[in-house]
Amino acid sequence: MNYGSIRRFLGMVLRFEAAFLLLPSIVALIYMEKAGLYYLLTAVLCFGVGTLLQLVRSDKGAFYTKEGFVGVALSWIVLSAFGALPFVLCGDIPSYTDALFETISGFTTTGASILNDVGALNHCSLFWRSFTHWVGGMGVIVFILAVMPLTGGYNMHLMRAESPGPSVGKLVPRVRDTALILYSIYFGMTVIQCILLMICGMPVFDALCITFGTAGTGGFAVRSSGFADYTVLQQAIITVFMIMFGVNFNAYYFLLLGKTWKEKKSAFQMSEVKAYFGIIAFCIVTITWSIRGFYGSILMSFHQAAFQVGSIITTTGYSTVDFDQWPQYSRSLLVLIMFCGACAGSTGGGIKVSRILLMLKTVKQEVLHFIHPRSVSTVKLDGKAVDKETVRGVNVYLAAYCMIFVISLLIITMFDNQDLVTVFTSVAATFNNIGPGLNAVGPMANYGHLLPVTKYVLMFDMLAGRLELFPMLLLFVPSVWKVKRR
Amino acid sequence: MNYGSIRRFLGMVLRFEAAFLLLPSIVALIYMEKAGLYYLLTAVLCFGVGTLLQLVRSDKGAFYTKEGFVGVALSWIVLSAFGALPFVLCGDIPSYTDALFETISGFTTTGASILNDVGALNHCSLFWRSFTHWVGGMGVIVFILAVMPLTGGYNMHLMRAESPGPSVGKLVPRVRDTALILYSIYFGMTVIQCILLMICGMPVFDALCITFGTAGTGGFAVRSSGFADYTVLQQAIITVFMIMFGVNFNAYYFLLLGKTWKEKKSAFQMSEVKAYFGIIAFCIVTITWSIRGFYGSILMSFHQAAFQVGSIITTTGYSTVDFDQWPQYSRSLLVLIMFCGACAGSTGGGIKVSRILLMLKTVKQEVLHFIHPRSVSTVKLDGKAVDKETVRGVNVYLAAYCMIFVISLLIITMFDNQDLVTVFTSVAATFNNIGPGLNAVGPMANYGHLLPVTKYVLMFDMLAGRLELFPMLLLFVPSVWKVKRR
Repeated sequence: MNYGSIRRFLGMVLRFEAAFLLLPSIVALIYMEKAGLYYLLTAVLCFGVGTLLQLVRSDKGAFYTKEGFVGVALSWIVLSAFGALPFVLCGDIPSYTDALFETISGFTTTGASILNDVGALNHCSLFWRSFTHWVGGMGVIVFILAVMPLTGGYNMHLMRAESPGPSVGKLVPRVRDTALILYSIYFGMTVIQCILLMICGMPVFDALCITFGTAGTGGFAVRSSGFADYTVLQQAIITVFMIMFGVNFNAYYFLLLGKTWKEKKSAFQMSEVKAYFGIIAFCIVTITWSIRGFYGSILMSFHQAAFQVGSIITTTGYSTVDFDQWPQYSRSLLVLIMFCGACAGSTGGGIKVSRILLMLKTVKQEVLHFIHPRSVSTVKLDGKAVDKETVRGVNVYLAAYCMIFVISLLIITMFDNQDLVTVFTSVAATFNNIGPGLNAVGPMANYGHLLPVTKYVLMFDMLAGRLELFPMLLLFVPSVWKVKRR
Repeated sequence: MNYGSIRRFLGMVLRFEAAFLLLPSIVALIYMEKAGLYYLLTAVLCFGVGTLLQLVRSDKGAFYTKEGFVGVALSWIVLSAFGALPFVLCGDIPSYTDALFETISGFTTTGASILNDVGALNHCSLFWRSFTHWVGGMGVIVFILAVMPLTGGYNMHLMRAESPGPSVGKLVPRVRDTALILYSIYFGMTVIQCILLMICGMPVFDALCITFGTAGTGGFAVRSSGFADYTVLQQAIITVFMIMFGVNFNAYYFLLLGKTWKEKKSAFQMSEVKAYFGIIAFCIVTITWSIRGFYGSILMSFHQAAFQVGSIITTTGYSTVDFDQWPQYSRSLLVLIMFCGACAGSTGGGIKVSRILLMLKTVKQEVLHFIHPRSVSTVKLDGKAVDKETVRGVNVYLAAYCMIFVISLLIITMFDNQDLVTVFTSVAATFNNIGPGLNAVGPMANYGHLLPVTKYVLMFDMLAGRLELFPMLLLFVPSVWKVKRR
C-alpha cells in the first residue's frame, strides 16, 4: 500500500469538501441562520486537515488499482465523517451516529433518513443534505477525475469500475475530458429541471433541493409533508427527470455530441436504454392496473404509478403516496425493481440494467450450450461481443452482492428484532441506494428507530452499494494494508 | 430432437413407475384398504402406456445432452402426472391439481403438502407419498443410470449435471457402477435408520415412511399431529440421519470403500463436507442461544434447534415445533439456510454448499485480483484447481436461479394477494425443495389454500429446483423441439 499517495489523495478530497461546505454557509447567510457558522467552522477544519494531509512528501510510489480502490473507499468514508459534523454541532441531529447515517445516505444518494420531522431543520442543513446527493450522484470518482490529473490507464480502470457494459471511457480518448463532458451534461440537466420547477410555481429553495435529489437520484425531501404540497404538474416534471437521470449518460453524449445522424440515432439503439424503458413501461402499466381503484381516476393512478416506479427504479426514493398500502403485486414489483436499479453510467444505484441484461444473456447462452454443446458461444451486447472478463465480472458481482446482502441480514436480525419484511427491505433499500423500504422503514416511516448496530450495517451497505462492492470489500483484506518493502 | 429415443425413454420410466405402484398396492392389502385397487389400476395403466411408447422402432438417432436433459425433465413430469392419479381415483385428494402438487412435492422431495389432515388418508396413499420421496431422493437420473445401459460419455455428463464440485462420475470408471454404489449406500443407510427407529419403539409403518422422507430429504409426515407423538430419542435419531443424508455421498464412498487409510481419511477432508458441518454447527449454536427461553431447558432448546436446522439445511422440511414463532434471527437464519441447502451429491436440495463455496472463492479471487492485477488466478477446491467451465457454470447457475425466483414471485403476486413473507418463503421453500415456509405456509399451515395458478408456479419451481434448473428451462426453448432434418 502506497500510504503517502492515499494520504495526499484524502487531503485533496477534504479540501474539496471545504469548498462544498461554503455553499450551505451562504444559504445560512440568506436565511440569517446561526447554524451557518458551524458549516463555516467545518469548512475551515476540512481545509486545515486536508492541507496537513497534503503536506506529506510524495514518495513517488506507484498508484495502482489497489490504491485507487482503497483511496476511493476511504475518501467516501472521510467525506461522510466530516460532512456529518455540522449536523451535530448546530444541534439539528444531536446523535453523531444518526448524523453519519444521514450524511452517508446523502453522499451515496440513498435518501434513507433518520429524521422524524424534516421541516424542523435549518435551511442550511436541508441544503447540505440535498447537495450531498448532487455531489455523490455523478460519482466521487468521476468528479475527482474531472478535476485531478492522474495517469491515464489508471483513470480508465476506475471509470470502468463504476460503469460496466458499454464503457464510459470510450467516449473520448482522454478520461478527464470524458469526466468533464459527463459533469457538463449533468449540470445542464440540473439547471433545466430547476428552472422548469420554478416556472411551475415551486419556491426557489424547494426547487433547488428537490432538483439536487432528482439529479443524484438521492431522495431527501425538504418538507415535513413530503411531496403532498407540490402540484401534480410539479410531480410529473420530477417523474420525467428522475427517469432521465437514470438513463446511461452515454446516450446523452451520443445525442448531443454525435456528429452524424447515425451517431445520434445510436442513443436510442443501446440495448440497456431500451431494456430500461421497457421495464419502466411494464411496471407503470401493470401497477396502474393494480391500483386502478385507489386514486379516483385511472389517470391519477397512472400518475402515482409512474412517479413511484420512476423513483424506485432510478433508486431516487421520493414518494408521493404510501405505496406500502398498495396491493401485494405492486409492493413486490417495487421491491424487485429496487434490485434492478437504473442504467450503468447513470446516477442511479442498484445492480444496474446492463448487469441484469448480461446475466440473462449468460443464462440464455448456457441453455443454448446444452442444445449445441460444440457451438462457440460469446455473449453479445449492442451487436458487439462482450469480453469474457466482463461477463465473469458481472457474475462474480452477483455472488458478492448476495454475500454482502446475506451477511447484512444476519447481523441485523441477530441484534435487532424487527420483522422480516422490515429487515429485508431496509437492507435492499440501503444497499441499492433507494431510501424507503416497507413496513417499519416504509415511505411514511424512517430509519431513526433502528438500533445503532443496524444503522452501522446499513451505512456499510449504502457505501458498498454506491461504490459497487469491491472498493469496500478491499478494506477487509489484511494484505492490502501491508507496506511494500523495497 | 430425437423424438423416438425420448419416447422409448419415457416408456421405460413409466414401466418402472408401474413396478413402484405395486408397493402401495401391497400396503393396501395388509391394511385391507379398497383404495389399493386404484393403485393397481394405475400400475396397469402405466405398464400399458409405457409398453405402447416403447413399441416405437428405435430410429438410431443420437442421444445427446439435449435429449438427455429434455428426457429427464419430461420423465419427471410424466412420473408425477401418472403418480397423482391414484390419489384422485381413491378420493384421498379429490382435486387433480392438488394431487399433482402433492406428487411433484413427493418426487422432488420437497414435502410441501396441500393436506389439512394427513391422518385422514389411506395407509397406501401415505405410503405412496413417502415412497415418492425415497425414489426422488437419490435422483431419477442416478436411478435410471443404475438400471439402464446408455453410452458412457453421456452418462458422465448427466451425473455431473446433478452434482457439481467433486464429480461423482470419478468414483469408479464405469458410470453404471457408480450409480449402483450410490444406491447401495443409500439403501443401506435407509435400512439402518428404519431399524433404529423401530428399536426405539416407533411403529413399523411410521418408521418406514419417516425413513423414506429422511433418506430422500423429503418431509411428508404421516400423522395429523406431525412429530409431536414421537419421543425425543426418535426425533434425535431422525436429526442425525437427516444431517447424514445431506452429506456428499462421495464421502461415504471414500469411508466405506477406500482401500488405504489415506483414502478413508479424505472423506473428512472434503472442503464441502467441512463447510457443511461448520454451517450446521454455527446455526445450531446461535439458534439455541436465540431460543434459550422457549423450551424449559437449554438442552431441549438445543434439541429443537438441531432438529429444525438439520431439517431445513438438508431441505427435508420435517418440523417438531412451530419455528414461525421463533425470534426474527432464528427465522431469518432458517430462511437463509433454505437457500444454502445440503452438499452436492447428496439427496438434499437448495443451491448446494459446494456452489456456495465456489461462489465465495470467486469473490475472494476477484478481490485479490484487484490487489495483484497480474496474478494468474485459479479457483481451488480440495487443493485441486477447479476448471473454468465449472466456475462459470456455478455463477451462471446463480443468475438463472435468481431469474426463476423473480419470475415466480411476480406471477404469484400478480394473481394471489398473499403477504410478502408468505409468497417469498413459499417460493423459497418449494424451489429449494424444503416444504414449509413462514406465515401462511409455515410449518403448522399448508399450501392447500393457495390459488391453482400459484400451485402450478410452485410445481414448476419444485421440478426446476430438483433438476437443477436447466432441464426445465430447456423445455421453453423452441429450437429444442425441432425435428432434425437429414
